[in-house]
Amino acid sequence: MSTSSIIDGLIAITSTKQVLTKNSELESYGQDWTRFYSPKPLAIVLPSSVEEVVEVVKLANKKGFSLVPSGGRTGLSGGANAINGEVVVSLDKLNKIIEFNAIDRSITCQAGVITEVIQDLAEEKGLFYPVDFASAGSSQIGGNIATNAGGIKVIKYGMTRDWVLGLKVVTGNGELLEFNKGLIKNATGYDLRHLFIGSEGTLGIIVEATLKLTRRPVNLNVMVLGVTEFNSMMHILNKFQSEIDLTAFEFFSALALTKVISHHDLQAPFETQVPYYALLEFEMVNDDIETKIMETFEFCMEQGWILDGILSQSEQQAKSLWALRERISETITIDTPYKNDISVTLSKVPEFLKQVDRLIEIEYPDFEIVWFGHIGDGNLHLNILKPATLSKTEFVKKCEQVNQKVFEIVRHHQGSISAEHGIGLLKKSYLSVTRTETEINLMKKMRLVFDNNMILNPGKLWD
Amino acid sequence: MSTSSIIDGLIAITSTKQVLTKNSELESYGQDWTRFYSPKPLAIVLPSSVEEVVEVVKLANKKGFSLVPSGGRTGLSGGANAINGEVVVSLDKLNKIIEFNAIDRSITCQAGVITEVIQDLAEEKGLFYPVDFASAGSSQIGGNIATNAGGIKVIKYGMTRDWVLGLKVVTGNGELLEFNKGLIKNATGYDLRHLFIGSEGTLGIIVEATLKLTRRPVNLNVMVLGVTEFNSMMHILNKFQSEIDLTAFEFFSALALTKVISHHDLQAPFETQVPYYALLEFEMVNDDIETKIMETFEFCMEQGWILDGILSQSEQQAKSLWALRERISETITIDTPYKNDISVTLSKVPEFLKQVDRLIEIEYPDFEIVWFGHIGDGNLHLNILKPATLSKTEFVKKCEQVNQKVFEIVRHHQGSISAEHGIGLLKKSYLSVTRTETEINLMKKMRLVFDNNMILNPGKLWD
Repeated sequence: MSTSSIIDGLIAITSTKQVLTKNSELESYGQDWTRFYSPKPLAIVLPSSVEEVVEVVKLANKKGFSLVPSGGRTGLSGGANAINGEVVVSLDKLNKIIEFNAIDRSITCQAGVITEVIQDLAEEKGLFYPVDFASAGSSQIGGNIATNAGGIKVIKYGMTRDWVLGLKVVTGNGELLEFNKGLIKNATGYDLRHLFIGSEGTLGIIVEATLKLTRRPVNLNVMVLGVTEFNSMMHILNKFQSEIDLTAFEFFSALALTKVISHHDLQAPFETQVPYYALLEFEMVNDDIETKIMETFEFCMEQGWILDGILSQSEQQAKSLWALRERISETITIDTPYKNDISVTLSKVPEFLKQVDRLIEIEYPDFEIVWFGHIGDGNLHLNILKPATLSKTEFVKKCEQVNQKVFEIVRHHQGSISAEHGIGLLKKSYLSVTRTETEINLMKKMRLVFDNNMILNPGKLWD
Repeated sequence: MSTSSIIDGLIAITSTKQVLTKNSELESYGQDWTRFYSPKPLAIVLPSSVEEVVEVVKLANKKGFSLVPSGGRTGLSGGANAINGEVVVSLDKLNKIIEFNAIDRSITCQAGVITEVIQDLAEEKGLFYPVDFASAGSSQIGGNIATNAGGIKVIKYGMTRDWVLGLKVVTGNGELLEFNKGLIKNATGYDLRHLFIGSEGTLGIIVEATLKLTRRPVNLNVMVLGVTEFNSMMHILNKFQSEIDLTAFEFFSALALTKVISHHDLQAPFETQVPYYALLEFEMVNDDIETKIMETFEFCMEQGWILDGILSQSEQQAKSLWALRERISETITIDTPYKNDISVTLSKVPEFLKQVDRLIEIEYPDFEIVWFGHIGDGNLHLNILKPATLSKTEFVKKCEQVNQKVFEIVRHHQGSISAEHGIGLLKKSYLSVTRTETEINLMKKMRLVFDNNMILNPGKLWD
């Protein structure tokens, strides 16, 4: 069918103002933060009600065009890119808070609400929405759920999955479904809510969610430790976790720190030279915790795991220490990093890291690696920096060769090729590293159950 | 095909000793704790390896007989009953601990391991497996996962779902799949692990699991409060949760208490007469918490929510207070209770309870109700006691009429007809109260993806 008749159909469902076709709009809505693909959507539609979403999906089924569900477009795997004449269904206008419930400690909202809006509303009500990450100011709740977003507090609070009490979705078939309705306990057949969480818009379009809130953490303190070798990192984590509840356990390498302090008005946490740094965060609820922290610190020093350390003495200092970790990503942008987001189980992290280091050292001696990540979850961000001598194209090509070898190490350690960024377009050719062919075939069949005509997000997850 | 050829086939895969056909064995393995159905399995097979499970499933597909996966058989909805000539696949012999990993804080075990064995092993290693309920001494890990077991610590630790890091299953098609492999973060397509959790043996047979452990709670204290009216219960919960992390929040009615103390060597927590009791448990990590607890208690008194209260002064007293709640179920057994396991969101609990009370009061004035439950999760156990004047048959018949009306109230409040006991055989005719026809149809299609020939647990969840 013709482009104009599709556009006419979309306008008939919504309104002229809700269908965008200008080149600048197509480009902007046609891609997420993954900049490897040229956006090429047919049009953008911005439904302003759930009913409009249903009608758009029905029209797509009837007329045979494809849809790309679209949130804040902060993804890093191309899950929201429209590169093949699809209609982008932006949730921007479905951005209402439907209910805050103090007794249930929950917020029900439309899918297009920005993560930070939920965080702020929770805080205003004396509560806490704990899913947090760098893009919280622009990512949308629907997108977070579609990718099961993680972030910096997972060690204590888990993933987005753990905070979704209810979900309203429009399947690829155009069915409007409402999962779990805010209940905590509900043992009545398959929990389809969990199937849709992390499905990257391939089963349905998330239009509404009920999110759980929790008690606000009190008096968060930060400690940065200088770690002698990577093996010690896991012992330190283990020892602290046996004593107190950590709200974060991050790590970064000496190179990452050097880069950060040379680009920002920040100081090294201490003068002692160490290969690795651990950043711990915890609620300093009272003096007993402080005593425990200091005793555990002493213990780790005696074991030779730690060479130095610093404990924040104020909220301001806690922020400055966090900045050492949080500013790494933006700092290395000028070095055109090739990013990988990998996870293995905690006990395998040291050996995994050693093998990857050795691989790069031997086969790509001119490559510099910046390691950092949510080590408390086994989640490592591997950043290869572009040598100045190499063109971007040559660099990317070489990195793709590296990928193959790194992913073989991931496979060997039964790890994940995408810890929290999803598969989208970018990782689909590597999916079989983490999932078997049998599993992929079963997933394809499941996709058909919810989307008979395969109109939703075609080409994502697999071809 | 003939019974004897099926039995010969099972023996060929396993051994003579692993196939049971005596009447007493058929009866014992053919049912769970739901005693409404006559067991009638064809045979019991006890595989001793994952490979044997795969072969049994393949044989069932080839020869066209049905299988009922079977764990500790402590279920209360008939999910593990074999009433129609099925072969029961008991996981009893798959009862090995495969690995304890101190760094990952995880245990990998076969599906037939008893819950308590995991709890004890965790404790021995200085850690904690927090899923706990009355049948922990005989329920098996595989069954817990297949039903997403909940229990008494859900308010703090969540359901079984939240503790499964990895899962090995044999699908109804005979495919051996391994989900998630112990990872904390893994965004690589649909999380089939979560689909299998709570699927009641209709998609596959769980053969192995990796379970997450956590820090052991310290110095658990118990408080029992006398509550003036049900509405206050939710305010008390809310107030305490805003101050401290509760590990349990249970409730029971005055009638429940009267029955318990008249049947056991237990004392009322205090003399003041109140209609409802709340039981709170928390970690008394230090004096600050005690101060907070006392302040919160005073606040609730001032609000008129509480009439009296008691705080445990020793581990022994904490146990005695827990007994008031935990012994209700066994106490009322002599009254032939008709049980319902219902949940609604917290904010709807008071109105829901009031409506059910009113219904019974008006329409069934000779029925006595004992209410108790995991109120912190919105999970209510509704127990109707049999009047001495009524025969058991008449009573059950009347209760089924009550059910229809109670479930209409559940539907009105968007609640669950089975909070934690599952659907099995017992609740399947009510499934549509909580799930729509569209959802049920989608679930049926998904079942076919994993079990083409519908050999697994036929007649469970739906007809």
